[in-house]
Amino acid sequence: MDEFMQAAIDEARQGLAEGGIPIGSVIVHDGRIIGRGHNRRVQQGSAIRHGEMDAFENAGRQPAAVYRAATLYTTLSPCAMCSGAILLYGIRRVIVGENQTFLGEEELLRSRGVSVEVLQDETCIGLMRDFIAASPQLWNEDIGVVDASR
Amino acid sequence: MDEFMQAAIDEARQGLAEGGIPIGSVIVHDGRIIGRGHNRRVQQGSAIRHGEMDAFENAGRQPAAVYRAATLYTTLSPCAMCSGAILLYGIRRVIVGENQTFLGEEELLRSRGVSVEVLQDETCIGLMRDFIAASPQLWNEDIGVVDASR
Repeated sequence: MDEFMQAAIDEARQGLAEGGIPIGSVIVHDGRIIGRGHNRRVQQGSAIRHGEMDAFENAGRQPAAVYRAATLYTTLSPCAMCSGAILLYGIRRVIVGENQTFLGEEELLRSRGVSVEVLQDETCIGLMRDFIAASPQLWNEDIGVVDASR
Repeated sequence: MDEFMQAAIDEARQGLAEGGIPIGSVIVHDGRIIGRGHNRRVQQGSAIRHGEMDAFENAGRQPAAVYRAATLYTTLSPCAMCSGAILLYGIRRVIVGENQTFLGEEELLRSRGVSVEVLQDETCIGLMRDFIAASPQLWNEDIGVVDASR
């Protein structure tokens, strides 16, 4: 396992331990993690703190040249919001743990020149599969799936 | 002036008064503002708190049906990140103060079925024009424009 995807998985597990949604992310520049985070919807009642967004926020204000040379690791295929943040900041390379439980905006990213590599990692798949089975309503709320019962 | 765009402008002016970037946004559901916000890059050192994102965050966790029936007002054309959040949550109608000082991802939004109306409001244009003239580096950092000098 790549040490940076392992760090993203560690973030996802920390989120799960906090009662949250197990998605983690790290942003790597020049061989070093400059931002790490995990989904905080439950923990902070946040609509915008997805794992990738939390990593951006924790990386703080960086020069454009840093984002351009950075790689973003995420345990799950990035949704429209997180993909938009990747485009805004000009991240050129994204490593995705898995896209079997949710397929995000990978095609949009590729159409804008972003390199997207999907590992289909069994640990990442298992984290989401178990979570969705246990908390389907929370997952549907987070990813904005329309549910007529709500 | 529409009362909701006026509320977004009030948010932008509040951000300017705080020393920040003058972009504001409100989310309206059933004739009522459920979330309001302004860019907080300077105030909170935040990479993700654009005006629209701040409005989403302040609206808190809402049911999918609320987002689907909501209208988002923003003083400036929404960037890739904020447009992604609009898509994630299924907002179907966006009212934009102006897109002359910055043109965001309006075409992407329209291609996904979102109604985007641009007012070209002189107050919104003036707020951004004056701000960019006074603080070009801050603006370029916020919107992720590559500047070789940084």
